Formats: sequence, structure tokens, C-alpha cells
Amino acid sequence: MKLYNGPTSPFGRKVSVLYRELGLPVNEVAIDVYSAEFLDALNPLRQIPTLELDDGRAIYDSMVISLYLVSVAGRGDVLPEEQRWDILTFCAMCDGVMEAVLQRRMETLRPQGEKSPSVITKLETRASRGVSNLAAQLHRIEGNGLRLDRIAAVCALEYVSFRLSDDWRTLHPSLAAWCEAYGRIPGFAATRPNS
Amino acid sequence: MKLYNGPTSPFGRKVSVLYRELGLPVNEVAIDVYSAEFLDALNPLRQIPTLELDDGRAIYDSMVISLYLVSVAGRGDVLPEEQRWDILTFCAMCDGVMEAVLQRRMETLRPQGEKSPSVITKLETRASRGVSNLAAQLHRIEGNGLRLDRIAAVCALEYVSFRLSDDWRTLHPSLAAWCEAYGRIPGFAATRPNS
Repeated sequence: MKLYNGPTSPFGRKVSVLYRELGLPVNEVAIDVYSAEFLDALNPLRQIPTLELDDGRAIYDSMVISLYLVSVAGRGDVLPEEQRWDILTFCAMCDGVMEAVLQRRMETLRPQGEKSPSVITKLETRASRGVSNLAAQLHRIEGNGLRLDRIAAVCALEYVSFRLSDDWRTLHPSLAAWCEAYGRIPGFAATRPNS
Repeated sequence: MKLYNGPTSPFGRKVSVLYRELGLPVNEVAIDVYSAEFLDALNPLRQIPTLELDDGRAIYDSMVISLYLVSVAGRGDVLPEEQRWDILTFCAMCDGVMEAVLQRRMETLRPQGEKSPSVITKLETRASRGVSNLAAQLHRIEGNGLRLDRIAAVCALEYVSFRLSDDWRTLHPSLAAWCEAYGRIPGFAATRPNS
């Protein structure tokens, strides 16, 4: 399998942590998605992460790739059946936080005359509500085993720190402590963006 | 189950068509998501569709809700196991087309001094590539039975017509013919936005 990914995508990072921790044979290729016209043949959205199977078929987005990798690995413990819908909803919430932070970042990079202060505020508020919800749900994700919601939480929270602000660690110290501890899993260290 | 939805959301429409065709007892509530502060308690992203279960738990986003409804209905034929990853990837592609058209719409509604012509072009190009890919994959979705990819395709294509342009019907007449035929399923008629 070949995984097209970028150096800072939180969606790609989720998938990268997952295949590493599952021990799956994935050939990860870092690309610049903004100039990756070749990707259209696999994924007309031209988005990362995109997984290419050995037979040439493509799988995306990050949620679908994650489900596929868990299925291939036969690791039901990563998505326990009895918590399936809570975990997938939690992952969707984390994806929404990542998306809000990513969109905000894109908005701040626009030239003068194209930025919207109200859009930036809206996205920051959404991300902040998501992080507060994450803190409120900490009891549901606490633990050490590999699980999709835990991977999503760390990727979302560290992306908030990376692109928006580290303030959430002061506001939610228990969440910060859990994130730091769970973030010591090797897959995170191998995929942490530098700056 | 209670489904919070809006009158024009293509993501909400996918879910609405699905529960109707599955014959599931869902109480659908139309809300104005832009002022729906109450929704934060269920979904801190404040996005529709959001499904509230009878025990108060929330399920989102539209992909997760769709998987949940198929599971509850016990209708494996709506997502056949042997085509599972192709179908879910196809659905993610349709979601990406809807998202591009929605984001473009939001961009065009911005006040002068906050619009980005290059963002609008990028989103239109992405949507167009998605529709071309849909046309190229028509042989894979053709048919009459209820299936997640077929629902997603009609919702995406009709949303392109609704918010962007109807030109794709001329460019891709076979796709247009299939979409019109499959779109006669009652669930689509009951959920088609007026204007």
C-alpha cells in the first residue's frame, strides 16, 4: 500500500500513526498537495491522505482509510464494537476541530482584501468548543490501548497547539496530561510536525 | 431517534433519503444551524446533520450517521461487504464535491473585501473534477437498488445543479440520465430543495 500524505496534515497524521502502530506495510510518500496534479487520477478532490492499494484502487478520506486499516489488521480492539458509534462520532468531532483550525490557517494566509475576521472568529470558536467537549469527554477516552478516538484526540489537540494556540493546556490540565502521556506512543513521535 | 437537519444541506439530505428509504422511525427537525446554539450540547461543531438517539447520545457526521442507520436497519445490501471500501471512498468523494460547492457558496456570500476569486476558482475546479470522476465511474454505480454510493451521487449532483450550475448534465448526458432515473426514488422527491 502507498500512502500519499503531507508533512503537517492532521488528517494524514491520524492515518500515519495508525498504520505504524498496527505494524502494517505502508509506503508513505510525502507530497506537496497544492501542486500534486498526479493525485487527481486517484482522488479527484486532490486531498491527502489518499491510500493507493497494490491493485491501483484508491481509498480516502482519513475516516475511510482508518476503518480500512483496522479491518485489514483484524484489530477489533482499536474500534470496539460496543463503543463503535461513540468512538466514530468522537473521531468526527476531532476531524471537525482539525478542519476548523486548518480553515482558519488558510484564512489567515489570504492576502489583504480577502480575509474575513468573522470567519476567523467563527472557526476559532468552533475549535474551542470542540476542545472543551474533548475535555468533558476525557473520562471516555482515558487509557493506554491503541484506539481510533485516542489517536484522533491527540492529533486534534496537537494540531490546535501547532497552528492556533497552546492555551488549552492551561484551561484543561487533565486533558493536557492525558494527551502528553498518550502522545508518547512511538507513532506520534515519528509524525510530529517540527514547526 | 431525532435528526437535526436543515432545508438545503446536501449532507443532511443524504441521511434524510436514507432513513426514509430504510423505513426507520426518525423524527426530523429542521433547524437554522447558524443560530442553533442548543445544538452545541449534542455536537460542539454546531453542524447538521446531527442524530440524537433516544438515550440522548449524539451521532454525527453524515458518514457515521449513514453507517449507523444501515447497521440499525440490518440492511447489508445498502453497503455490500465485497464493495465496502469502493463504496465508502465514492461517498467520501461525493462529500468532497458537496463541501466544495457549499464552501464556494459561502465564499460568494461574503461582503466585498472578503471574497477570494482564487478560492472560488479552486473550489469550482475541485467540484468539476469530482463530477467528471462521477461520470467516469458511472458503470460502478448504475442500478436501481438502495445503496449508499447511489444516494450520495444524486445528492452531490443535484446540489451542484442547485448551487453552482446545471452544465454537467450537458457534459455528461449518461450520468444525467441515470441521476434523473435514480432520483425518482420517493426519498429524493421528499427532500429536494425548492430553490
